[in-house]
Amino acid sequence: MAPTIGVFDSGFGGLTVLRELRNVLPGANYLYFGDTAHLPYGAKSVRTVAKYAIASAHFLEQHGIEMLVVACNTATALALDDIRAAVRVPVVGVIEPGAQRAAEISQTKKAVVIATDATVSSHAYQRALHQFGMEATEKACPLFVPLVEEGWVEHPVTEQVSHIYIDQVFQDAADGKPNGADVLVLGCTHYPLLRPLLRRVVPEHVEIVDSAESTAAKVVEILGKESGRGSTGNLRCYATDSIEKFQRLGGKFLGQPIENIELVDIEK
Amino acid sequence: MAPTIGVFDSGFGGLTVLRELRNVLPGANYLYFGDTAHLPYGAKSVRTVAKYAIASAHFLEQHGIEMLVVACNTATALALDDIRAAVRVPVVGVIEPGAQRAAEISQTKKAVVIATDATVSSHAYQRALHQFGMEATEKACPLFVPLVEEGWVEHPVTEQVSHIYIDQVFQDAADGKPNGADVLVLGCTHYPLLRPLLRRVVPEHVEIVDSAESTAAKVVEILGKESGRGSTGNLRCYATDSIEKFQRLGGKFLGQPIENIELVDIEK
Repeated sequence: MAPTIGVFDSGFGGLTVLRELRNVLPGANYLYFGDTAHLPYGAKSVRTVAKYAIASAHFLEQHGIEMLVVACNTATALALDDIRAAVRVPVVGVIEPGAQRAAEISQTKKAVVIATDATVSSHAYQRALHQFGMEATEKACPLFVPLVEEGWVEHPVTEQVSHIYIDQVFQDAADGKPNGADVLVLGCTHYPLLRPLLRRVVPEHVEIVDSAESTAAKVVEILGKESGRGSTGNLRCYATDSIEKFQRLGGKFLGQPIENIELVDIEK
Repeated sequence: MAPTIGVFDSGFGGLTVLRELRNVLPGANYLYFGDTAHLPYGAKSVRTVAKYAIASAHFLEQHGIEMLVVACNTATALALDDIRAAVRVPVVGVIEPGAQRAAEISQTKKAVVIATDATVSSHAYQRALHQFGMEATEKACPLFVPLVEEGWVEHPVTEQVSHIYIDQVFQDAADGKPNGADVLVLGCTHYPLLRPLLRRVVPEHVEIVDSAESTAAKVVEILGKESGRGSTGNLRCYATDSIEKFQRLGGKFLGQPIENIELVDIEK
């Protein structure tokens, strides 16, 4: 029987992970939970993010999921262990798969990671990459999420902001020469929408690793390819705030229109 | 005896209102509540904003305030009536004072209002300005809050974004000529930090109205100038998330360092 996979994010970004999951396991059933009443997690504390993430995970567990994908870099960085301790189903985060993929393709064993303030402050990517023998330079890009949500994914302003955030990171602080990094890890689920623009901004020899793809591959590894074969499974979405906005913005991230969204309250 | 005034916002922006209040009523005592665990309100629904705003108002009322200033445009736009119904003390919002001030100085009786998505969608400024005999063009500027929080208040990117948001608004849709507006209302408490930059972007004949100033004047009108005379009163701040971030960012908005911040949970 097809498995039911829970996918959790603070908002819409995790839909880029869901999109990859449905590519590789189309027959699985999916419950997507967007904690939109509390987004963005990127600027919140560990304590607050853990509280909301656990409440969301409990909700999904009560609705019958057999596996939970934490499709939110901030929640993974700040609260993955807390979430694992709070539920009985296996939990996959987005950070380790992205770090592992970076290590597989890097020749120089040096990566640059771009993410939100909270993810960078946690140094979760640095730790994960280190475990795979990689050095990491982390760079917070707090304007990328609002720029994506404004719809400016191919806008001159976004290109200018990208140059400001990224150009210097690939240079050595001491002499201004290339720092040797040959991988850029997109450490936020909003960033895959900026991938074409970032491809033009980032030095040519640098490969871009999208955690959404790597995470989907990890889930296949755990569940087996057979588990999600066959005809398209069900998708049901839950949001803690405005259904209308979820429908409007979410479609951009999933790459297709979203129906079947239910408003829920996890603070009761 | 000096009054105790409660000032409420979703985050730090309301500190621009507190700053003006302390200018005109230095002797009053202030309790500032920043609901930082739930910020930003700008993209949330009426239902969610009202729930958080009322919980915050109750908290301040239980701590002895004699008047409540809702120093948040989104909360005022979406939930002022709900907040008034939920507490016993007088409640002043930021929208009506700004609209009244705009009407006082406008010759053409046409204003442009810039604000968050939620404030614009509510058309609260349009209604308030209409009551004072003014026509209003409302424009959402969702990138301004993240740009201010990034600290880019005098940055070329912010200037470019301002031109994109604002240039067309002062033109007539039909013939591209000036639309006659002679006032720009800053309909978000983050925007006073952009005032010097906006002064350069906005046409010269247009006056800028800062709701923070107008709101402080309204409070003086209600309480009387005498009430807040004398030596500097106490200031105590409450936040629902990271004290550290409140301290770091809040100081920019208040114009001086902030001590005396307490972490509180309004969801219990």
